Amino acid sequence: MPTFTPPVRDMAFVINEIGALDRISALPGYEEATPDLVGAVLEEAGRFGAGVLAPLNPVGDREGCELEGEKVKLPTGFVDAYRRFVESGWNAVPFEPEFGGQGLPWLVATAVQEIWHAANMSFGLIPMLTQGAVELLSVHGTADQKALLLPQLVSGAWTGTMNLTEPGAGSDVGALRTRAVRDGDRYRITGQKIFITAGEHDAAENIIHLVLARLPDAPPGAKGISLFVVPKFLVNPDGSLGKRNDVSCIKLEHKMGINGSPTCVMAFGEDEGAIGTLVGRENQGLALMFTMMNNARLAVGLQGVAIAERATQKAVAYARERIQGIAPGRDAPGPIIHHPDVRRMLMTQRALVEAGRALTYFTAAQIDLSRRSPDKAERAAAHALVDLLIPVVKSWGTANGVQIADMAVQVFGGMGFVEETGVAQHLRDARIAPIYEGTNGIQALDLIGRKLIRDRGEAMQALLTQIRQTEAELAEVGGEALARLRSELAAATTRCAETVAWILAHQSEDPNLAGAVASPFLNLVAFTAGGWMTARMALAAQRQLASASDDPFLMAKITTARFYADQILPQTAGLSVMVTAGADSVMALAVDGF
Amino acid sequence: MPTFTPPVRDMAFVINEIGALDRISALPGYEEATPDLVGAVLEEAGRFGAGVLAPLNPVGDREGCELEGEKVKLPTGFVDAYRRFVESGWNAVPFEPEFGGQGLPWLVATAVQEIWHAANMSFGLIPMLTQGAVELLSVHGTADQKALLLPQLVSGAWTGTMNLTEPGAGSDVGALRTRAVRDGDRYRITGQKIFITAGEHDAAENIIHLVLARLPDAPPGAKGISLFVVPKFLVNPDGSLGKRNDVSCIKLEHKMGINGSPTCVMAFGEDEGAIGTLVGRENQGLALMFTMMNNARLAVGLQGVAIAERATQKAVAYARERIQGIAPGRDAPGPIIHHPDVRRMLMTQRALVEAGRALTYFTAAQIDLSRRSPDKAERAAAHALVDLLIPVVKSWGTANGVQIADMAVQVFGGMGFVEETGVAQHLRDARIAPIYEGTNGIQALDLIGRKLIRDRGEAMQALLTQIRQTEAELAEVGGEALARLRSELAAATTRCAETVAWILAHQSEDPNLAGAVASPFLNLVAFTAGGWMTARMALAAQRQLASASDDPFLMAKITTARFYADQILPQTAGLSVMVTAGADSVMALAVDGF
Repeated sequence: MPTFTPPVRDMAFVINEIGALDRISALPGYEEATPDLVGAVLEEAGRFGAGVLAPLNPVGDREGCELEGEKVKLPTGFVDAYRRFVESGWNAVPFEPEFGGQGLPWLVATAVQEIWHAANMSFGLIPMLTQGAVELLSVHGTADQKALLLPQLVSGAWTGTMNLTEPGAGSDVGALRTRAVRDGDRYRITGQKIFITAGEHDAAENIIHLVLARLPDAPPGAKGISLFVVPKFLVNPDGSLGKRNDVSCIKLEHKMGINGSPTCVMAFGEDEGAIGTLVGRENQGLALMFTMMNNARLAVGLQGVAIAERATQKAVAYARERIQGIAPGRDAPGPIIHHPDVRRMLMTQRALVEAGRALTYFTAAQIDLSRRSPDKAERAAAHALVDLLIPVVKSWGTANGVQIADMAVQVFGGMGFVEETGVAQHLRDARIAPIYEGTNGIQALDLIGRKLIRDRGEAMQALLTQIRQTEAELAEVGGEALARLRSELAAATTRCAETVAWILAHQSEDPNLAGAVASPFLNLVAFTAGGWMTARMALAAQRQLASASDDPFLMAKITTARFYADQILPQTAGLSVMVTAGADSVMALAVDGF
Repeated sequence: MPTFTPPVRDMAFVINEIGALDRISALPGYEEATPDLVGAVLEEAGRFGAGVLAPLNPVGDREGCELEGEKVKLPTGFVDAYRRFVESGWNAVPFEPEFGGQGLPWLVATAVQEIWHAANMSFGLIPMLTQGAVELLSVHGTADQKALLLPQLVSGAWTGTMNLTEPGAGSDVGALRTRAVRDGDRYRITGQKIFITAGEHDAAENIIHLVLARLPDAPPGAKGISLFVVPKFLVNPDGSLGKRNDVSCIKLEHKMGINGSPTCVMAFGEDEGAIGTLVGRENQGLALMFTMMNNARLAVGLQGVAIAERATQKAVAYARERIQGIAPGRDAPGPIIHHPDVRRMLMTQRALVEAGRALTYFTAAQIDLSRRSPDKAERAAAHALVDLLIPVVKSWGTANGVQIADMAVQVFGGMGFVEETGVAQHLRDARIAPIYEGTNGIQALDLIGRKLIRDRGEAMQALLTQIRQTEAELAEVGGEALARLRSELAAATTRCAETVAWILAHQSEDPNLAGAVASPFLNLVAFTAGGWMTARMALAAQRQLASASDDPFLMAKITTARFYADQILPQTAGLSVMVTAGADSVMALAVDGF
């Protein structure tokens, strides 16, 4: 069974039809992103992912990382693979040419990154964290910081980290206690950070830590947090490496998955204090972090899609191979893919992977539009859509990642529970994604609070209007398969609209309401938005079929859309009832009653 | 945080109110099972589970089992704990006094076993497999087999195994190839079995393998399978141990969970053929296996409930302790249990655990009734109910086990993904239960095929009639909390009834239909039956509250029922739509299209 086949045609289809590459490549600076170039990039990335990264995935799981003194050893092969990754320019794909980047749209970079995460999620975390550092410094760094750090981070010669979490400060990052004191034009940082992905490793010459800390005279809570650049090795004004900074990894976590990725406890300032330079202004650290939050959350949602794709491929391959039992209408034992209950699992996986990919790429395209559209109104509309969809992409993508990997394990039966087939690893790896970069509960609160209630449902209304347009297109096209999708999508959209109205009408009556219904509300929006994406893919396939009437790839899009209508969208019925049942029974049992 | 607190009051409540202990202890032979005795047994079992087994649970996970030559070493402490388990008589709880059993009802034994699985699922598997061997030999063994083997298996001095699965024969056990040839009045067995739980270990003097194999002149498929007793050490006519049999463990599986349980590849007859004696008649092995299937599947569903209980306890304890963020309506950071989204997770866990436990114990009580009721009609009715509910108990219990353990990980956030908190182990352990003892897909096929379509829905109709009676009781009692439960339960029951009618009307039109809709149909029945159980618990609590008006335990039952109505039963709306959408879109994509 092949290890991993990058779904290049699916990716290109979504980039072109859902991400509307033609519109994106018309944006200033993105002119080179033609369908041909994008196709070539995906092919090449696919070769690297399948050929170099995927074979290392089980190695990373088996070996894990090792802390030897202050050094962290990545699993066998990771350092060499990372060297080749950097040399091939993969780290630089979405970044500004000014600093050595390839200047491709996020729409395209997102597809490329799906390949890294699908091939080897632990490996993919290194460039993902570096990307966060690049984005942050690109917008908020001083001229010096940019000049000294960005070329190295863009190429990937150096890697980046995000140092937010502390033992007492996770979801509530405002509670952090790491201290920073002024020392001339620099700062001395002291404290401990936990869950620092790639906080220490042996694949790059230097590691640039972005660290949230608190100045002695800072206001309490989230408003008293500043952001610092703390390099592992100090960087001389000429760009050469100086002495070792007072920061080190003192422990690696033993985790249920992503064992190829070192999750570090980092100690800052055990001696004289780690030397850092300020990013932006004092006490504005959290706001700065938010500038990279959308992309980071998109990237984590994408990990869910990627693992789901990989697990689905494994499940399909196994279901084709594994002979067991006589399926209905057959007369001899055959592959389990002929059994309807197995087919249901595979179709569910397929439908959710495709919808999740489409929603993720669509949101990435909106990021491109929100940044580069020459039209201010279009920028604003895209920005509102991004803000609205990011928690959905993150939460739904990662929840589906776990569910789909879990289904893949089930398709494998007993062979899924043993580690040698590798499918269990995907489930164990996938399980982190609903937790990090803001738990899925935090995403749900973000959606219902900041993105829905705060603007009185305006952004949501705009989304629902777009979905209604797609429903109208479905009605125009006609046909039995799409009729069912249209009616189920219309029902789901109505449920969304009614639920939104109910929330807006009732949320002020009970301070617990928003939080109590946040999760089913997010799922309601997600399944509906996924149906919208599925409908748009089906419409695009229908259009293309006019000139390629028997292309099975395109026909499968229609079939999958029908499945999504029959077997996935109906879940929205229960979700809307759960939301409008309100907070009462969620909160009724007193804390002492548990 | 305490490791494990056996939920003794919950168990006793369900035994008395849902299992109707008064009816069970009126059955012949069960007279000693008074509420007092049962309470004492649960307390004592709780002490053993919490004090002896639970502390070994992480040890088993960390160390795993080791194959040294032909010997399998259990993790540190397991052998000693098993010795104490046997000495305390725990292995003998449900078995016939004739062979040294304690003769307690399955209703009670089920509760006791929940404690073992919650405390240490890997450990709990040893008596669970032995129980299967005892049941089988009790019914089908020869007088010699019973006399020689049962006393040792009942006490637990020897343990049992079930040798069914082979590399090419899993769900389709009829495909097995292990051979048996006659050798005088015995048989020589040759072949390989996989996934054999506790196939070899160092905790018992002897291991009694029950092995399915095929005689040279047997008919093909499931009708040509015979069942043999193959002891690790041959047993002399005086009961003493003879020479080592030609059977050995040649490999241990490396699994994602239940690492404390040795999952063995067993080789039979590598030399002269393993010596076995026939159970029952030749070629009737599979039918014999079915006699223990109901209890074995009940036990696996129970594992799901047990792990869910354990994981929920951990999540509640962590949510009480973990300070993070300011909850709505509060003015300072406090424990995360005050956050509504966390509360939703904990309430979901609680509601599903309680409903799952009630359904499992209820079914166990029906087993007792089906075997011992003096009234033939009552026996038959109970038997039909058992057959109908077993696939539901197995599938729903184990799926909920995974989902609830997964939610517990989520409550822990990042600390759930690292192994040191122990909650990840519960998720990894729980993941096997939807696979073994018939995958949940097989359960769904069993429900819709053998249990629904084959009897034209008669047993299901009887169940729905019972649920309608409970709805009528809810109506009589009145009250706002139960009104909501009544309306949601009535809606779910109607959906079940309509879906059943639809399946019966349409199943013959399409050979794929039953298989394609089996899983959502099982879930529809399960969520409804869970609501029924929840309603019966609420009614019982309501009755008891008449004389204990402020007992928080009883009031919590009402609160939980309201939550089940608001937040869990609405899922049945989507499930019934999925079923009646039929097989078309499930099967529409050709195999080549994947």
